Amino acid sequence: MRRTRFDDARCPVARATDLMGDWWTPLVLRDAFFGQRRFSGFQESLDIPKAVLAARLARLCDEGMMEKVPYSEHPPRYEYHLTDKGRAFWDVLAAMWRWGTDWCWPEGEHPYLSLKSRATGQIVHPIVVDELTGERLDLDAVRFGRTSTG
Amino acid sequence: MRRTRFDDARCPVARATDLMGDWWTPLVLRDAFFGQRRFSGFQESLDIPKAVLAARLARLCDEGMMEKVPYSEHPPRYEYHLTDKGRAFWDVLAAMWRWGTDWCWPEGEHPYLSLKSRATGQIVHPIVVDELTGERLDLDAVRFGRTSTG
Repeated sequence: MRRTRFDDARCPVARATDLMGDWWTPLVLRDAFFGQRRFSGFQESLDIPKAVLAARLARLCDEGMMEKVPYSEHPPRYEYHLTDKGRAFWDVLAAMWRWGTDWCWPEGEHPYLSLKSRATGQIVHPIVVDELTGERLDLDAVRFGRTSTG
Repeated sequence: MRRTRFDDARCPVARATDLMGDWWTPLVLRDAFFGQRRFSGFQESLDIPKAVLAARLARLCDEGMMEKVPYSEHPPRYEYHLTDKGRAFWDVLAAMWRWGTDWCWPEGEHPYLSLKSRATGQIVHPIVVDELTGERLDLDAVRFGRTSTG
């Protein structure tokens, strides 16, 4: 069954959802963010069926989030590099990481791995703020409004 | 075909992905964040098949992100209220909103709706920062490390 598509929706969340609905995709991106570039590398790291991985990488290229870059001519071989659009998705993954860490482990337990600052080694806690004010994005303090007029 | 499950994965992103893979779920949550509570309201707003909506709401209750609250005894009727775990997912949606807004519209076009501050009416631009330092979460400045020791 083909799932419902949201990629022409009027809502930015819906368009992002369309991509996330390909349920391996955030994990492919996670590995790409931390240096993975080759088909065999993704496959080994994720233990993902080849056909599924090929479909996910093709979709990410179609979306302009990754691009195929040749690294060998004989035989022809390609790496998958993140584009600016792909790298920008990191914020979504960071927010998912935080939420998963806070809410998806039993009380008193923690994920084995944490995000850490390369400079200080301190654990990093992603939060979402308003770029203008630097304040937490309180759900009760925002509303939807027309982009043009308000 | 049952899709691959990630809900027991060691990675917080994977656990969050498991939920997002139910591809209507972020949109159900989006509507809940902006006040929707009733089955009929979600259904009308999302134009979603009843069986799919029922499955998504049941999953969100199972996950502890929503709870069923009776609002009528005769006949028995329920509303779906967000829990703290559900409300915390707002950060993920806000990051998705930002990414979708920035990257999923043609150059020079914008989504019809924006997130705005209730207080000032200004458009709000969600970004992800480190809670400790308030600095942008630069992908090149973080790494994975063991939670316990470093």
